[in-house]
Amino acid sequence: MKVAIIFGSKSDIEKMKGAAKALKEFNIDYEAFILSAHRVPEELLQTIEKLERENCECIIAGAGLAAHLPGVIASKTVIPVIGVPLNAALSGLDSLFSIVQMPKSIPVATVGINNSYNGGMLAVQILALKYPEIREKLVEYRKNMKKKFIMENGEGVEL
Amino acid sequence: MKVAIIFGSKSDIEKMKGAAKALKEFNIDYEAFILSAHRVPEELLQTIEKLERENCECIIAGAGLAAHLPGVIASKTVIPVIGVPLNAALSGLDSLFSIVQMPKSIPVATVGINNSYNGGMLAVQILALKYPEIREKLVEYRKNMKKKFIMENGEGVEL
Amino acid sequence: MKVAIIFGSKSDIEKMKGAAKALKEFNIDYEAFILSAHRVPEELLQTIEKLERENCECIIAGAGLAAHLPGVIASKTVIPVIGVPLNAALSGLDSLFSIVQMPKSIPVATVGINNSYNGGMLAVQILALKYPEIREKLVEYRKNMKKKFIMENGEGVEL
Amino acid sequence: MKVAIIFGSKSDIEKMKGAAKALKEFNIDYEAFILSAHRVPEELLQTIEKLERENCECIIAGAGLAAHLPGVIASKTVIPVIGVPLNAALSGLDSLFSIVQMPKSIPVATVGINNSYNGGMLAVQILALKYPEIREKLVEYRKNMKKKFIMENGEGVEL
Amino acid sequence: MKVAIIFGSKSDIEKMKGAAKALKEFNIDYEAFILSAHRVPEELLQTIEKLERENCECIIAGAGLAAHLPGVIASKTVIPVIGVPLNAALSGLDSLFSIVQMPKSIPVATVGINNSYNGGMLAVQILALKYPEIREKLVEYRKNMKKKFIMENGEGVEL
Amino acid sequence: MKVAIIFGSKSDIEKMKGAAKALKEFNIDYEAFILSAHRVPEELLQTIEKLERENCECIIAGAGLAAHLPGVIASKTVIPVIGVPLNAALSGLDSLFSIVQMPKSIPVATVGINNSYNGGMLAVQILALKYPEIREKLVEYRKNMKKKFIMENGEGVEL
Amino acid sequence: MKVAIIFGSKSDIEKMKGAAKALKEFNIDYEAFILSAHRVPEELLQTIEKLERENCECIIAGAGLAAHLPGVIASKTVIPVIGVPLNAALSGLDSLFSIVQMPKSIPVATVGINNSYNGGMLAVQILALKYPEIREKLVEYRKNMKKKFIMENGEGVEL
Amino acid sequence: MKVAIIFGSKSDIEKMKGAAKALKEFNIDYEAFILSAHRVPEELLQTIEKLERENCECIIAGAGLAAHLPGVIASKTVIPVIGVPLNAALSGLDSLFSIVQMPKSIPVATVGINNSYNGGMLAVQILALKYPEIREKLVEYRKNMKKKFIMENGEGVEL
Repeated sequence: MKVAIIFGSKSDIEKMKGAAKALKEFNIDYEAFILSAHRVPEELLQTIEKLERENCECIIAGAGLAAHLPGVIASKTVIPVIGVPLNAALSGLDSLFSIVQMPKSIPVATVGINNSYNGGMLAVQILALKYPEIREKLVEYRKNMKKKFIMENGEGVEL
Repeated sequence: MKVAIIFGSKSDIEKMKGAAKALKEFNIDYEAFILSAHRVPEELLQTIEKLERENCECIIAGAGLAAHLPGVIASKTVIPVIGVPLNAALSGLDSLFSIVQMPKSIPVATVGINNSYNGGMLAVQILALKYPEIREKLVEYRKNMKKKFIMENGEGVEL
Repeated sequence: MKVAIIFGSKSDIEKMKGAAKALKEFNIDYEAFILSAHRVPEELLQTIEKLERENCECIIAGAGLAAHLPGVIASKTVIPVIGVPLNAALSGLDSLFSIVQMPKSIPVATVGINNSYNGGMLAVQILALKYPEIREKLVEYRKNMKKKFIMENGEGVEL
Repeated sequence: MKVAIIFGSKSDIEKMKGAAKALKEFNIDYEAFILSAHRVPEELLQTIEKLERENCECIIAGAGLAAHLPGVIASKTVIPVIGVPLNAALSGLDSLFSIVQMPKSIPVATVGINNSYNGGMLAVQILALKYPEIREKLVEYRKNMKKKFIMENGEGVEL
Repeated sequence: MKVAIIFGSKSDIEKMKGAAKALKEFNIDYEAFILSAHRVPEELLQTIEKLERENCECIIAGAGLAAHLPGVIASKTVIPVIGVPLNAALSGLDSLFSIVQMPKSIPVATVGINNSYNGGMLAVQILALKYPEIREKLVEYRKNMKKKFIMENGEGVEL
Repeated sequence: MKVAIIFGSKSDIEKMKGAAKALKEFNIDYEAFILSAHRVPEELLQTIEKLERENCECIIAGAGLAAHLPGVIASKTVIPVIGVPLNAALSGLDSLFSIVQMPKSIPVATVGINNSYNGGMLAVQILALKYPEIREKLVEYRKNMKKKFIMENGEGVEL
Repeated sequence: MKVAIIFGSKSDIEKMKGAAKALKEFNIDYEAFILSAHRVPEELLQTIEKLERENCECIIAGAGLAAHLPGVIASKTVIPVIGVPLNAALSGLDSLFSIVQMPKSIPVATVGINNSYNGGMLAVQILALKYPEIREKLVEYRKNMKKKFIMENGEGVEL
Repeated sequence: MKVAIIFGSKSDIEKMKGAAKALKEFNIDYEAFILSAHRVPEELLQTIEKLERENCECIIAGAGLAAHLPGVIASKTVIPVIGVPLNAALSGLDSLFSIVQMPKSIPVATVGINNSYNGGMLAVQILALKYPEIREKLVEYRKNMKKKFIMENGEGVEL
């Protein structure tokens, strides 16, 4: 396993599938965990320790409302933590602020509201630094993205 | 000690003094700690356990930015936690949202932005349920507040 | 009766049921009142006086829009008042600000927008200070919450 | 006295002077009171009753933070209440929302943040409906405002 | 006609009916106009002049988005203008700010977002200053509002 | 005169100088007027008519608070109107919303808060469509902007 | 072709049709392109160069979220760029801020959220400066707009 | 060079020094560039290509207002881009939204407003995945951070 995906409730599964989708597209091993910073802090800690022992290289954490999960994880490990703010109230502003505004020294790499796919892609880009084969795929992915975009939209559009 | 006041940085001392001021006015024993949910999570946990052993009855926690401290404390104890959002950016909205929007089952009793005095007063009101002498003082305090208000403002005002 | 639940309109019944649910889980006696700070201020005052006479120990007040109810109650009694901001417009921001930003000396213990269950839980935590049997149940509740969480989610999750 | 100006603290005197200024320009009798909906609710109520007995015709109420004062007054009388949101935090948004978002049936006539002069002017316009001499002055005031504006700015401006 | 109700589009009819409802409850003559400050500024001006000639005593103006209508009317007449912010985007915040933040000297009496009923009630309260029979009805209305509220809600409520 | 700059008060002169500065850099004739949509609506109308007669080709209008000026001008002429939101309260959000959220058919070309220089530049870009010599200068301006940027910053920077 | 309409995704076609509608009403030639500043930056650049060669006179660019498209286009050409913020999250505030708050020297003429029709109308008004026949139609359009408004709404309205 | 720091103006030097500070603490080679997505897009592109050729492993990009720089860079390279929103207006909300809300597939790893130090730290954490010696230092850094925190604050605090 290279990447762990952690979020706090079964009700967030749909919103977090994007992260898995991005990782699958690059054949990157990942494991997903439902863990809550507030409900099972000890289990969360144990999982983080397990992730460290197993050399997990990136953690994607999604949370809504007073979204402490990504920051709490970041405070327990030096593995890069990617935070995905989920919209459960206030258009997701509460979650965004709770994740991105981390204090000095303990950053969380925050992506867009509900944009777990970008959480996955950011993990891919980070892993690509170390794994040349992922980087190659990533360069290919971007090329294909452009090709597909041009093929679908290049003819212009009737408005 | 009946009340613990916890916050994350020496730079917040001025903003948190109001909590101590309110408790002093009621002769309530308190102790203040500088502890960070992100920098010293283990020490924070130890302190919470100590507070539980010593029968601390209320915890006032102040924090700014992605203010996880009150919620993290609340997840570790059943002692009531009062959260004081401190303004370090975004007029304190980031801190307010990070504190008040706690998930189901783990509430934080949130007071106004930078209003640590109200954090102290809320602790007083909570303790008054159990300690009749505090309740008496509280009733007296309200009476005096009114008297003082009327004495100072009762004559009307020139505008 | 230990706890009073007060809100301003029949249309808020669904949103406020969470408070009752939390209290029922702990077998705490409560009574619910529909009372408005703006429409029936005298009856509200009489009810508060009745609550004081009957040694009510905590008041949970829910309100939307320019949500004055919790603050108005807090100004009339020293019983701790828990405010539940209800979303009727502006995602509930109007209500949140109207409840949490109380002036010096008269705090309202504010919980999350529409999160009346947390309003109930906060009342439970406050009563637990005085009633050891509630505290025991509360410790048990947290243990069960964790157990249930682990049982439901401990296997990991397919994404 | 035709108009009452009410606000909650000596610290708001400067911000509320605009209301008095507008009324003075029209020689309208007014009286100013420092009264708080939260600190001296009984005195506030007595003052409102006095204002009703003395046929006060308009009440201008300024408040900051969780600004309940204008709404609480409006709930106790049918005299039109003009609310002036004062900026004490959050750029005055908390105060604006607490004043303008009143529930059905109990309106507060809200003017701009810190714009107590407009509070006074609105009172003048309301009184002008009943008092022809005020209306005449008001029409004159508008004419003079235009004249003065043109005299000061009519020549164009160097930029 | 004592009151004019003005708004900018047929699509706002439903949102503005509340104003008419309040006026009907008090048998106050009103007339409604669809007029736009941006599309038919000359006709708007003519209508305002007609309203002045016919001694209209209060104008209720509803508008959404960049809601200039109430302020533009207020700049053309000394008749009190009540502004009703309508939610067409941004939860109505754009409209609220465009109406309430009028510059010095030209106030608009702003009520809550989409709350045209309160716009009507504010007109009633203003007219009551001059017309004793409206004032009597208003006092009666408040009494009935309380009675009805108590009858409907006085029994307490099951939660 | 090709461009008119209009704003509502002498106190905005400093904030609006940027518009003049941009026009001067391109030797474009302009004239500045202090005119208020609320205080001198008739004079504003006369000036707009004069601008039309004199074939003015672009109007830059700056305003703060409930900033109606640009939209009111736009409703009276088909000359393109550029709106500059000025920050007088709420960080300029009230002004931005009042200018940019114009209804269907009557657009205002809005630039950034307090960014009157961009208001001027947008006028330059619009005039460049018709006047080849302005377009040439504009192309030159961009080249120089790049050159200057590179000269000043091209060496890299010590951090 | 006089006007180019550019936006980033097929999913925005419905929201951008308003721009085409406005241009069609004035028989102005336009072409629409789906191009993304982030996915196909090179193709975007090529298209902008093509537009310059073909003397395109106005570009309307619509985008949501972190809406860079209008600003990126504006940085590559001196053709006036009209930005249409599209609401994909946060009520469109993210998009509005990303478009309107351009830095000094590179303005984007921003219209209302989702208001692509106004984007088209602004293009019409800009072209009218150069093309007398468009200006004539525009004057006619405004007259018809008024006529139609009066015909539809002039009878007053039942409320 | 392992890390590039890019921002758009000399006026941002002070705000971006934190990024350099963090990197220096870990002896990580970095280079800083002042480059603007809007003023020198070609030079920006050339620099990105140079960074790719020189195997730069992380790019930290700071920007204010309509902050396109981080996203534009991210669209041109698969090197991970860390975005630092700088506060130039609207408390930095415009910049935060412009950076974090990137569309699907092109993420920017966003840190807190003005928190360039966290931008640097995130780069350190990302590089630590590949370079064991950085990881060791990072683990040490965290230990020291805790030690220092405890040493400075462990005695409790007088309030």
